[in-house]
Amino acid sequence: MTLGELADALGLRLEGDGAKEIRRVATIQSAGPGELCFLANERYRAHLSASRAGAVILDEGSLSACPVDALVSDNPYADYARAAALLHPPRRPEAGVHPSANIHPDVTVPPTAHVAAGAVIEEGVILGESVVVGAGVYLGHFCQLGGGSVLAPRVVIGAHCRVGRNCVLHPGVVIGADGFGFAPDKQGWVKVPQLGGVQIGDRVEIGANTTVDRGAIEDTIIEDDVKLDNQVQVAHNVQIGARTAIAGCTAIAGSSRIGKGCMIAGGVGIAGHLSIVDGAVVTAMTLVSRSITEPGVYSGSLPMDDSAAWRKNSARFRKLDDLARRVTALERSEKQKGE
Amino acid sequence: MTLGELADALGLRLEGDGAKEIRRVATIQSAGPGELCFLANERYRAHLSASRAGAVILDEGSLSACPVDALVSDNPYADYARAAALLHPPRRPEAGVHPSANIHPDVTVPPTAHVAAGAVIEEGVILGESVVVGAGVYLGHFCQLGGGSVLAPRVVIGAHCRVGRNCVLHPGVVIGADGFGFAPDKQGWVKVPQLGGVQIGDRVEIGANTTVDRGAIEDTIIEDDVKLDNQVQVAHNVQIGARTAIAGCTAIAGSSRIGKGCMIAGGVGIAGHLSIVDGAVVTAMTLVSRSITEPGVYSGSLPMDDSAAWRKNSARFRKLDDLARRVTALERSEKQKGE
Amino acid sequence: MTLGELADALGLRLEGDGAKEIRRVATIQSAGPGELCFLANERYRAHLSASRAGAVILDEGSLSACPVDALVSDNPYADYARAAALLHPPRRPEAGVHPSANIHPDVTVPPTAHVAAGAVIEEGVILGESVVVGAGVYLGHFCQLGGGSVLAPRVVIGAHCRVGRNCVLHPGVVIGADGFGFAPDKQGWVKVPQLGGVQIGDRVEIGANTTVDRGAIEDTIIEDDVKLDNQVQVAHNVQIGARTAIAGCTAIAGSSRIGKGCMIAGGVGIAGHLSIVDGAVVTAMTLVSRSITEPGVYSGSLPMDDSAAWRKNSARFRKLDDLARRVTALERSEKQKGE
Repeated sequence: MTLGELADALGLRLEGDGAKEIRRVATIQSAGPGELCFLANERYRAHLSASRAGAVILDEGSLSACPVDALVSDNPYADYARAAALLHPPRRPEAGVHPSANIHPDVTVPPTAHVAAGAVIEEGVILGESVVVGAGVYLGHFCQLGGGSVLAPRVVIGAHCRVGRNCVLHPGVVIGADGFGFAPDKQGWVKVPQLGGVQIGDRVEIGANTTVDRGAIEDTIIEDDVKLDNQVQVAHNVQIGARTAIAGCTAIAGSSRIGKGCMIAGGVGIAGHLSIVDGAVVTAMTLVSRSITEPGVYSGSLPMDDSAAWRKNSARFRKLDDLARRVTALERSEKQKGE
Repeated sequence: MTLGELADALGLRLEGDGAKEIRRVATIQSAGPGELCFLANERYRAHLSASRAGAVILDEGSLSACPVDALVSDNPYADYARAAALLHPPRRPEAGVHPSANIHPDVTVPPTAHVAAGAVIEEGVILGESVVVGAGVYLGHFCQLGGGSVLAPRVVIGAHCRVGRNCVLHPGVVIGADGFGFAPDKQGWVKVPQLGGVQIGDRVEIGANTTVDRGAIEDTIIEDDVKLDNQVQVAHNVQIGARTAIAGCTAIAGSSRIGKGCMIAGGVGIAGHLSIVDGAVVTAMTLVSRSITEPGVYSGSLPMDDSAAWRKNSARFRKLDDLARRVTALERSEKQKGE
Repeated sequence: MTLGELADALGLRLEGDGAKEIRRVATIQSAGPGELCFLANERYRAHLSASRAGAVILDEGSLSACPVDALVSDNPYADYARAAALLHPPRRPEAGVHPSANIHPDVTVPPTAHVAAGAVIEEGVILGESVVVGAGVYLGHFCQLGGGSVLAPRVVIGAHCRVGRNCVLHPGVVIGADGFGFAPDKQGWVKVPQLGGVQIGDRVEIGANTTVDRGAIEDTIIEDDVKLDNQVQVAHNVQIGARTAIAGCTAIAGSSRIGKGCMIAGGVGIAGHLSIVDGAVVTAMTLVSRSITEPGVYSGSLPMDDSAAWRKNSARFRKLDDLARRVTALERSEKQKGE
C-alpha cells in the first residue's frame, strides 16, 4: 500500500509523501524505509528523532519532532493496530472439512467454515458462517459457535455452551468444565452437579490455557468485547461485563460479578460472591476480598525489596498490632503529662 | 419425580404435597412451580419469603419462614446436591470404541468402556470397567485407570501413572509430566531424571488444565476423595491427604505434604519440603512458607485498598523496621524520664 | 552397571567395592542393596548413618559418616542426576510416522524422527533429526523444531515459531499464541495484530501447560538452557536470558527482559517493560514492579500467620501511614520538651 492509501483507509492526516510505498510495520527503534511504526508510549519518545522509518503514526504534539513522514492520529496505538491489520491481513484457512475430523452426521457445517484435522464435533452443535474449528478442537453436545469465530488448536468447549460471533479462543482454552462444587457431608464430599452452561458474547478473545467453568444452576456469563489473557481462571456463575479486560493468571472465584469496562491486571485474585462496579481498575497481584462499589484504582500487593530489608520489615509486620498499641500508649502517656 | 419420591430417596422429612411433580432444580431467586431449590447460605435467606418454588430444601430453623413446600435437612447443600443428581442424571456416553481411537493391540478395553474419537492408548495400559476416555485423551505406557473414572477430552496421563476408581479429570489436565528437577553444575543445568510416577486415589476430581508432576524417585501421591480445582499445580513428590480440597490456581512446590481434610483456598503458594497438618485451612493467596503443625486458619494476603491509600501505606512498610526502632527509642526515652 | 563402571563414567572417586552391581536409584531413606542414592541436602543427613544403600554419592565431608560404599563428588546432586540417566536411560519412541498423523505433503520428516498418532504438521514446517512429535501435537505453518527436541502429547506451536535443539516441551505447552494486545478506542478494543514469532534456544525445557506468546512486532525470545516449570506465563516480547530457571505459575508481562542465570521462584509476577539484571534471585510470590539493576535476592511476599493475628496486623497496615505520622509527632513533641 502507499502511505496515501493508508491515510485514506484510516482517515488520518498525512504529513509527507502519499505515493511512498509501505510494506510492513516495525518498531520505532528498528523501522527503516518502507516500514511503518508508531509512537504512543512516552517510554519510546527518545527514539523518534533518530527514526529512519517510512512513516510514523503519532499525535499532533509529536509531529514537530518527527524527522520522517507521519500520519497524525488522536489515538496512534489504535490506528497503528488498524494499519497493521491492513498491511498484514490475517490468513484465514480455506473453507472445508478435513477428512480426519469427526463430525456427528446431524451437524450442518456451513460451506464457509473450516474444520481442521482431528476436530471432534458432537451431536447438536450449531456452527455459524465462516467459523474456524482448529486441529483437535472438541465441541461438546449442543454447543454453539457464532459466525466468524476462530477456535485455535486444542480448544475444548463443553456441552450446551455458547460462544458468540467473531470471537477468538487460543490454544488450550477450556470452556464449560464443571465448576468446583462439592458439599461437605459426614461421608465426605458430595459432588454438586454443575448444570448450567457458559454464555460468551461477541468479539470476545480468550488467551491460551484459560479456563471458564460452567455454572452450577444458571450460566457463567462473559459479555461482548471482553478480553481475557492467558491462564485466567473463571469459576462457575461468574459474570464479566462488556469490554472488561483481564490480564494473565488472574483467578475469579464463584458467583462474582465484574462490571463493564473494568481493567484487571495480572495475577489478581477475586474472591467469590462479590461485585465490582463498572470501570474499576485493579493492579497486579491484588486480592480483591470485598466488593468494589466506587470506580477507581485498587491495589493490594507490596512492592518488592531486597530480601534482607524485606525480612526485617516483614518480621515487624507480624507485630504491627503490638507496635500500634505501643504508640497509643506513648500518646496517652504524653497526654497525661501535658495535663 | 414427585416430591414424595425425592423425600424418600434422600431420607428427608417432607412438609407439603408428596404428589407434587418436581422437574428440575433452580436457584432460590428464580425457582417456580415444579422446580426445587435450596437454602444453605445466609446470603440468600432474604429470597426465601418470596419464593414461588415447587419446594425448598432447608434446615429446620428456616422452615417457619418458608412459604412453599419443603424438604427438611440437616445439610441442605449436600441434600440439594443429591437431589440434583437424581433429577439431572449425568449422561454417560455409550460403551464402545470410536474407530479413530488409536489403541495398542495388547490393551484390553472392557466392553463397558467408552473410548472417544482420537484417543491414544499406549502399550500396557490397564482400563477399569465403565471408564470414559474422552476425545483426544492420551494414556501413556503402562498407566492405569480405575473403574468408573471419566477422563474429559484432551487429558494427558503419562507413563506408569495410576488413577483410581470413580475419578473425574477435566479437560487439559496433565498427570505425570516431568517434575522440575535440574542440578546446577559448572556446565549449566543437568536434568535430574524424573523416575517416579503419580498415584491418584479413588473419587478424586481434578479441574481443567491442572498439572500434577511425576515424582523424582518415588511417586507423587494424591489420596482418596481429594478435590483439585482448575489450574492447580502439584510439583513432584507432593503428597495430598484424603478429602483435602484445593481451589483454583494454587501451586504446591516439591516434596511438601498436605494433611487430610485440609481446605486450601485459591491462589495459594505452598513452598517445598514442608508439612501441613490434617484439617488446616489456608485463605486465598497466602504464601505458606513454613510447616503448619497445628490445625487452624492461616492467612498471608493483605486486604485491597484504594491505590492512593495503598501507596502511602506500602511506602511506610518499606521503613517498618525503622519505625519500630523509633518507637522503641521513644519508649526508652520516656522510661528514663520516669525514673 | 557395576559401581566401578559408574565411578568411571562419572569421573568420581570410588570408596568401596567396584564390582558391586547397581541396578537403580532410590532415596537415601529407602535405598537398599543394589540401589544408589545421594546426599546433597542437609535436611536428609540424619538418614546417612542408617543407610543400607548399595552406594551413596556424597561430598568428601560426608564420607566419614557413611556406613556403606560411596562415590565422592564435588557436586553430589549433579552427579546423581548423571548416574540416574545412566541407570535409567530414557526410552525414546522408535523412529517412524504414525498413519493417523496429518502431515502436509511438502514437509520432509527425517527418517530418524518419530511422529505420533494424531499429530498435525502444517505446510513449511522444518523438523530436525531425531525429533519426537508426540500424540496430538500441532505444529503451525513454517515453524521449526531443532534436532533432538521432544514435544510431549498435545503441545501446540504456532506458525513461524522456532524451537532449538534438544529441547523438551511437556504436555499442554502453547508456544506462539497471540500476545494480549488491544488498543482502547472510542468504539471499544481494537485488536493489535501479533506479527512477531517466538524464538526458543537449545536445551530449553518447558513445563506442562506453560504458555509463551508470540511477539507483537518482533519476537519473544527464550535463550539457551532456560528452564521453565509448569503453568508459567510468558507474554509477548519478553526476553529470558540463558540458563535462567523459572518455577511454576510465575507470570511475566509484556516486553520485560530477564537476564542470564536468574532464579525466579514460583508464583512470581513480573510487571511489563522492565529489566532484571543477570544473576538476580526472586523469592516466591513476589511482585517485581520495578527493574532490578543489582544482582541479589529480592522478596515481596509476607509470611503467613494464624488468621486471628493476621487480621489484627493487616487492619493496622491499612493505617500504617497514619501510625508513622503519629510516631513523628511524638518524636517532635519529645524533641521540643528536650529543648
